[in-house]
Amino acid sequence: MADAEKIELTSDQEAEFQRQWKVLSFGVSEITPEPEFRDMLRHSIKEDKPLRVKCGIDPTGFDVHLGHLVPYKKMRQFQDLGHLGVVIIGDYTASIGDPTGKDVSRSSLTADQVRANARTYMDQVYTVLDRNRTEVCYQTEWFEEVGLRDIIGWAAETTCAKLLSHDTFAKRLEEGSPLALHELFYPVLQGIDSVFVKADVELGGSDQKFNVLMGRDYQKHRNMRPQVAMLLPIITGTCGSQKMSKSLNNYIAIQDDPFDKFGKIMSIPDELMADYFRYVSSLNTDEIEQTIAGLEKGTLHPNETKKMLAMNVVDFFHGEGSGIEMREKFESVFKKGGVPDDAPESEFERGALLIDILLDAGLVPSKKEARRMVQANAVGVVDGDKITDIEKVLDDSFAGKVIKVGKRKFLKLK
Amino acid sequence: MADAEKIELTSDQEAEFQRQWKVLSFGVSEITPEPEFRDMLRHSIKEDKPLRVKCGIDPTGFDVHLGHLVPYKKMRQFQDLGHLGVVIIGDYTASIGDPTGKDVSRSSLTADQVRANARTYMDQVYTVLDRNRTEVCYQTEWFEEVGLRDIIGWAAETTCAKLLSHDTFAKRLEEGSPLALHELFYPVLQGIDSVFVKADVELGGSDQKFNVLMGRDYQKHRNMRPQVAMLLPIITGTCGSQKMSKSLNNYIAIQDDPFDKFGKIMSIPDELMADYFRYVSSLNTDEIEQTIAGLEKGTLHPNETKKMLAMNVVDFFHGEGSGIEMREKFESVFKKGGVPDDAPESEFERGALLIDILLDAGLVPSKKEARRMVQANAVGVVDGDKITDIEKVLDDSFAGKVIKVGKRKFLKLK
Repeated sequence: MADAEKIELTSDQEAEFQRQWKVLSFGVSEITPEPEFRDMLRHSIKEDKPLRVKCGIDPTGFDVHLGHLVPYKKMRQFQDLGHLGVVIIGDYTASIGDPTGKDVSRSSLTADQVRANARTYMDQVYTVLDRNRTEVCYQTEWFEEVGLRDIIGWAAETTCAKLLSHDTFAKRLEEGSPLALHELFYPVLQGIDSVFVKADVELGGSDQKFNVLMGRDYQKHRNMRPQVAMLLPIITGTCGSQKMSKSLNNYIAIQDDPFDKFGKIMSIPDELMADYFRYVSSLNTDEIEQTIAGLEKGTLHPNETKKMLAMNVVDFFHGEGSGIEMREKFESVFKKGGVPDDAPESEFERGALLIDILLDAGLVPSKKEARRMVQANAVGVVDGDKITDIEKVLDDSFAGKVIKVGKRKFLKLK
Repeated sequence: MADAEKIELTSDQEAEFQRQWKVLSFGVSEITPEPEFRDMLRHSIKEDKPLRVKCGIDPTGFDVHLGHLVPYKKMRQFQDLGHLGVVIIGDYTASIGDPTGKDVSRSSLTADQVRANARTYMDQVYTVLDRNRTEVCYQTEWFEEVGLRDIIGWAAETTCAKLLSHDTFAKRLEEGSPLALHELFYPVLQGIDSVFVKADVELGGSDQKFNVLMGRDYQKHRNMRPQVAMLLPIITGTCGSQKMSKSLNNYIAIQDDPFDKFGKIMSIPDELMADYFRYVSSLNTDEIEQTIAGLEKGTLHPNETKKMLAMNVVDFFHGEGSGIEMREKFESVFKKGGVPDDAPESEFERGALLIDILLDAGLVPSKKEARRMVQANAVGVVDGDKITDIEKVLDDSFAGKVIKVGKRKFLKLK
């Protein structure tokens, strides 16, 4: 790695460096080590050599949410500045299950499940990435061929003390929770990935610091220029208190329909708005800073600003104009006590089982899900009672009423 | 595993069981679990199905000593009773280095070094084993083909807490000594070996208990009958205080010449004699017990009995009659202040460098070794002074003297 002093740039290059630095360092939790990243970026500009910016995905699920996209939005910024995104499909690490921040060993998936998940996953990630500047690699490409001797060699490069210093491992060992030997391999394999793809930068959530720094070690041992860790914040879910996560049901999914996206964003607490503008919106850095300043000074109205945010997100994922459309629908629903004009209708059928009606009308994907929602107190009559009996049969009192399922689904019983 | 009650034997089979049990359980530190071993042996006799008795060797060295042979002598007893010996050449574990009882990570060997060592090693081990009832396997046979997914699977079957409960690992972690991740794989691979060779019994030194029990776990997970651990004592070296080991230079090597073997055995403290009769001699169990009893009661003279032991060992390794020959030579040397009649001679050469003379006469294998011996105070003039100067030049005072190197090597200067 060349010395900072030695990377002299022309004035045009210096301006380009300042421009890139401003965008790339915006909204980042940590760049480690930052001086190396500055040198790396200067060198890239001087030599006109794009950086290889890695981010791994763990294809154990297939439902991508806005929290997952935070590092990929950073990757897109790199791409727009001429750098290359390298997405690693962690089909081997997925068979381990990332123990980071988890308290229990996860069950592993079959190779076929992983492949199927990965394809769906990438379709969703491409909503933010530039396909033409994205290299997608499966870990299989390098891990399929390795033997026991290679693996012993990699394991010999790190120590138990180091791995067990990782918070999540230390905590589980201390508590006596099960920590299987193979879980120690998660950071090792993630580190080896960086060697194989020759990563210059690795992006990840701030809980990925340990794993990302392993890549530096493995690259150094091979006399490669070590990658820089660029860690992004982990955004809070719509609940306003915990990180966005599928299991906490406080997430906004890429696959959510535009009206759901709009409504979910309108449901976030005002305090989250600044972070959502920073990490979720598609505004540029100047616009984001102005908006946040406006909110702080009180020149922007929170509710109106939240609608701007919701429209921005809907427009981004569903096309220009869809944001305003959802806003109008949302406002109309809001005026009518929440029931949209175009809510589906169903024939009122005395004696029918409520969950059959909901299933037929497509408000629930399965009877099982219908039962789960009833048990979770998420089904009720608009301006009436919650439905608490999963065997509820329609009687005369239901005639002409509207059934509400979850926060934003309705069924009119004619 | 069948119930003990259910394995009914005929009276002939019962007598055979008693005969085998007496031999096999003799001189063993621990059989774990013993009831399973008794059942296994009864079953083997009833079904006339030999047991597969495994012992692994770590081909990191090539100089086998009597301590190494203790488990192989037990294996020979199994063989003489009709069972099968399975010797595993640990060419993969050797590339890790057995961390058991070691305080530091060992450097690993190349595959070629391991192969060469293994051949030399087996030649020496065959001094006690029956070749016709020995199966020799290299770990390579099963480990060459495995992939990362298999290895992750094996690692998933055990926990860090379990591995780190192993004394040697726990101690090193606690002390902050380096413990590399790959070392945790030593017991895992040794356990997987037992699956591949379908071991019924695994022999090892008593410090191998942890590793041997891993094999039981891996077999159980695959619904195999788990192997029984048969642990043998670790014998004390000629120094009388520490375990026999090459690095402590207190060992009797298979490759030692018969006179060295005789002399080394004569140098052991009397208290070790019982153990050496049990684990080193080729006497049968009744003879051993009688000898030990005679020594305890004082009906056998310690020095005379030690000569019997030395003759027995020399006869075993160098052929019937060589024991008495070495005894006579030993006694004659002893009478003459230790210088044997057939000690090599060298022309007295005034002004020559002593270590050159020793090298030319073949008393030392290299100048480096000669220097080491001088520095260790192991070179001197018989009935004269120690040589302490590695640059010692022969002057007139050396004419006609005898130089002694170590305990049993002499050079007459004519």
